[in-house]
Amino acid sequence: MSEVSDADIGRLLLRCPDGPGIVAAVSTFLTRAGANIVSLDQHSTEAEGGTFLQRTIFHRPGLSAALEEMDREFGATVAAEFDIDYRFAEAAKPKRVAIMASKTDHCLLDLLWRNRRGELDMSVVMVIGNHAELAEQVRPFGVPFVHIPATRDIRAQAEQRQLELLKGNVDLVVLARYMQIISPEFLAEVGCPLINIHHSFLPAFIGAAPYHQAKERGVKLVGATAHYVTEVLDDGPIIEQDVVRVNHTHSIADLVRLGADVERAVLSRAVLWHCQDRIVRHENQTIVFGRS
Amino acid sequence: MSEVSDADIGRLLLRCPDGPGIVAAVSTFLTRAGANIVSLDQHSTEAEGGTFLQRTIFHRPGLSAALEEMDREFGATVAAEFDIDYRFAEAAKPKRVAIMASKTDHCLLDLLWRNRRGELDMSVVMVIGNHAELAEQVRPFGVPFVHIPATRDIRAQAEQRQLELLKGNVDLVVLARYMQIISPEFLAEVGCPLINIHHSFLPAFIGAAPYHQAKERGVKLVGATAHYVTEVLDDGPIIEQDVVRVNHTHSIADLVRLGADVERAVLSRAVLWHCQDRIVRHENQTIVFGRS
Amino acid sequence: MSEVSDADIGRLLLRCPDGPGIVAAVSTFLTRAGANIVSLDQHSTEAEGGTFLQRTIFHRPGLSAALEEMDREFGATVAAEFDIDYRFAEAAKPKRVAIMASKTDHCLLDLLWRNRRGELDMSVVMVIGNHAELAEQVRPFGVPFVHIPATRDIRAQAEQRQLELLKGNVDLVVLARYMQIISPEFLAEVGCPLINIHHSFLPAFIGAAPYHQAKERGVKLVGATAHYVTEVLDDGPIIEQDVVRVNHTHSIADLVRLGADVERAVLSRAVLWHCQDRIVRHENQTIVFGRS
Amino acid sequence: MSEVSDADIGRLLLRCPDGPGIVAAVSTFLTRAGANIVSLDQHSTEAEGGTFLQRTIFHRPGLSAALEEMDREFGATVAAEFDIDYRFAEAAKPKRVAIMASKTDHCLLDLLWRNRRGELDMSVVMVIGNHAELAEQVRPFGVPFVHIPATRDIRAQAEQRQLELLKGNVDLVVLARYMQIISPEFLAEVGCPLINIHHSFLPAFIGAAPYHQAKERGVKLVGATAHYVTEVLDDGPIIEQDVVRVNHTHSIADLVRLGADVERAVLSRAVLWHCQDRIVRHENQTIVFGRS
Repeated sequence: MSEVSDADIGRLLLRCPDGPGIVAAVSTFLTRAGANIVSLDQHSTEAEGGTFLQRTIFHRPGLSAALEEMDREFGATVAAEFDIDYRFAEAAKPKRVAIMASKTDHCLLDLLWRNRRGELDMSVVMVIGNHAELAEQVRPFGVPFVHIPATRDIRAQAEQRQLELLKGNVDLVVLARYMQIISPEFLAEVGCPLINIHHSFLPAFIGAAPYHQAKERGVKLVGATAHYVTEVLDDGPIIEQDVVRVNHTHSIADLVRLGADVERAVLSRAVLWHCQDRIVRHENQTIVFGRS
Repeated sequence: MSEVSDADIGRLLLRCPDGPGIVAAVSTFLTRAGANIVSLDQHSTEAEGGTFLQRTIFHRPGLSAALEEMDREFGATVAAEFDIDYRFAEAAKPKRVAIMASKTDHCLLDLLWRNRRGELDMSVVMVIGNHAELAEQVRPFGVPFVHIPATRDIRAQAEQRQLELLKGNVDLVVLARYMQIISPEFLAEVGCPLINIHHSFLPAFIGAAPYHQAKERGVKLVGATAHYVTEVLDDGPIIEQDVVRVNHTHSIADLVRLGADVERAVLSRAVLWHCQDRIVRHENQTIVFGRS
Repeated sequence: MSEVSDADIGRLLLRCPDGPGIVAAVSTFLTRAGANIVSLDQHSTEAEGGTFLQRTIFHRPGLSAALEEMDREFGATVAAEFDIDYRFAEAAKPKRVAIMASKTDHCLLDLLWRNRRGELDMSVVMVIGNHAELAEQVRPFGVPFVHIPATRDIRAQAEQRQLELLKGNVDLVVLARYMQIISPEFLAEVGCPLINIHHSFLPAFIGAAPYHQAKERGVKLVGATAHYVTEVLDDGPIIEQDVVRVNHTHSIADLVRLGADVERAVLSRAVLWHCQDRIVRHENQTIVFGRS
Repeated sequence: MSEVSDADIGRLLLRCPDGPGIVAAVSTFLTRAGANIVSLDQHSTEAEGGTFLQRTIFHRPGLSAALEEMDREFGATVAAEFDIDYRFAEAAKPKRVAIMASKTDHCLLDLLWRNRRGELDMSVVMVIGNHAELAEQVRPFGVPFVHIPATRDIRAQAEQRQLELLKGNVDLVVLARYMQIISPEFLAEVGCPLINIHHSFLPAFIGAAPYHQAKERGVKLVGATAHYVTEVLDDGPIIEQDVVRVNHTHSIADLVRLGADVERAVLSRAVLWHCQDRIVRHENQTIVFGRS
């Protein structure tokens, strides 16, 4: 999506019971508020009687100063009339993101590198590693690396330390091949969404060692899945997936190597789309607005 | 795109100089006219001062009876105010399509198969062949096959006969591997767009024998391109392209075989999108609204 | 694979415990037998101590007359020395294939059409339908269509009638979206392999209604899997898989439509490779020699 | 390709006029020399009378000590008999590679990352930049960065300095988005092959600013091409190509961003295959043995 990304660009995401007149009411509101609609994408989950979801990008001179008032007025008028659950965001305010990783570097490095190039619309405020290995590689990017050892046995105390760093400080946590289970308590406490990359084409090969499972089953494609984390392992709403072709000549090590390229690409796209406020969750699925 | 396709679904395509308030004006017009917006997709060619293009799908009970009046009123109000070039269409009225072919059957058959399955939203009113070979294969589909011999030497008279059949009778002509040059006079006369499938990834390998050219150059992918026909050979606005991986083991015959699958897939998508009023031409490019 | 396909081209497939000297012994045997090796592809399942598999294509003037003697001599010498399980085949003898189908036509038509174009190296000796719907569409291809009603309740007697037609008459049975379970008894009796197309990316979405399962889970790709049929449902050795990108705008009907293109492509490749003697089964996996 | 990569693995590449008995003669030679064939791949450019090319991977205990003798004996016997142009290589000896770059980092970093992870079978002996920008990014990898300013005006002296560093010291030069023309004199002098990445799907969009050309033409896919460098700009033998889907919403900056991912993937594969001795040049094409 080539969307102007300066101080006066706003995004409005909304969800409500479907019905006639919503697009007109919202766009008229924005026009009257001095905003010009740059793009508008909407989706209805059913032909009739379902849920209506919309993402609108608009340009409004002096947005930062005007946003609080727009928000209040929208809530009191259009949102009240159509029973809309909504959220305004400013394109110029990048999401604050923490990345958690273990020992493998490909997903972490790709995120840091893309962000340095200005591709990802985010501000990486810290990297948390449960091993020390990646500290050296993070340093050139000027991002704090915090080593918090974590294993199954010390999960509770590790998560406590993680939460102390994260709560209130980040808008998103990205699990970039972080190889520890996240507890329901952590999810309840952290106060922001988590995106995970799973190294298989879910729902195939849930759980541990998916490339071993893939080799065993003799599949001809291996893949990766970026999804929001929920309490059920590898079951959260899928954001993005992709695959790469493999064959009988490939060892498990080859699958790991080829799959790594898919993992980093899929995770980067998911993070980008989240940071651009392009994703709306509905039931256990995602609506991803716009086109990549 | 899953869009309800019954008698009360309308499509409105528009193009005008970009500026504020267009989305709001159009959606308000539709709402007041009793229409509910099902989907809305728009594109601006420049951040500022470019061309604004929009496709709106709406549901309006009693559309058929009301459309003439809606069209007139839209023209007199919103279109006049914003200098909009626009077009209404009814989803329930399939496009009338003529397919022209020569000797190879894959593109022609795929269109006929898909249309029989109800995938393509079109009514095939005739197939014109410059050879008689494909008559037998068209027969089971209940579509008239007209044999009009055509070669370089008798182009003028062949095109005259073709025009007698086509003018006023069709909304689209599809060249499904029709291996004759189309003259500028034919294009000027026929009164509807033509879509052609070229058996290469344009602009690579323009002209004759693209698979031979591809083998000669040693490319690792071969492709196909569906485009609107213009006076300049293989230069019209591109609608869709795709490729397939090839390698040194493939002979030219293999490229032809593998490429055929890409050709028929690409052409079918282009025809579908056209018949769904999803394509707008702008300069020598296409905007394809919605998502495949 | 562009391999000369005339009367003097032979194929030798072999499998044996891995060890040194096998390639040399086999190629020396072929050279002495007057054969020129056109291509040779081999695979070892382990770095050491695994299974060795090889496919050799050779040209041998007067092959048909000489093959019996070559087979006997190879068995008595090289095969005996290296404990080789082997099979010779003549490229000029197309496999005899029966296709079984139900109501949907896309896989069946694609196989018949490709075969008419000479793409598939097979002879389709019959189509068996458990419904009568597809008879009309098979007729133009000049292949016998046999209607054998089959449901869960009359499976045993339906399979009995199928076996009467198939046993000894075919080298391969292709299930082209045949929507009935195949019994273990049928598999034991039929005397040739069966290839099935499953409309999902196995092992995801095993069993009924995979596109419904896919929509429910919110996956971003849907796929298809061609596999040999074994006693365990959707668990046989995978031959080929592919996927197509989908998104939240796609209804289940859209997934069915988009998936159909993948299904027919995947099944056609699997059948082609089988008919070219390119596939060797090893444990529950396939080795597919050559390159597509 | 999962090929054991230790001290006793050798590779034999050969090219000769096609004829019977070559595979047998070569494999018999290797067996007698105490080598076990791990894999063997061959290609004939014509059905008859063309060029025969083969790559053989073998395991030979004590290879390093024995190789000189094997080479001499092969030359005196099999190579002499069949007029074979051949080359032995040891898998354990990684190619010495120099990377040349300008200002953009994606191709350079991807090569360095992959090599640090052990994916590329090469030893990067230096990075030469005609700008100083990338020095900082190369430092963490422990590879010397040499800044040799180069522009059109000072090409001759810049190339002179480059040659002083490269001649005799490297087996391969990789142009990782190096934005200067290479002179025929440099090619004649450097004494090793050069691989370049061009940011288009050649032969489309030869020359400067291919993404601008692509946007202008309205293509629906953009791609990248890795090729050996010859005297004719963007015309050398193609090693690998790939594409990514784009649409009307993408600005030129988006094409650059999306294309960068294809460029680095394509270049990495080309470099890997070259370093594994998998590529043979024939006329203006490449044969790439094995499967990725």
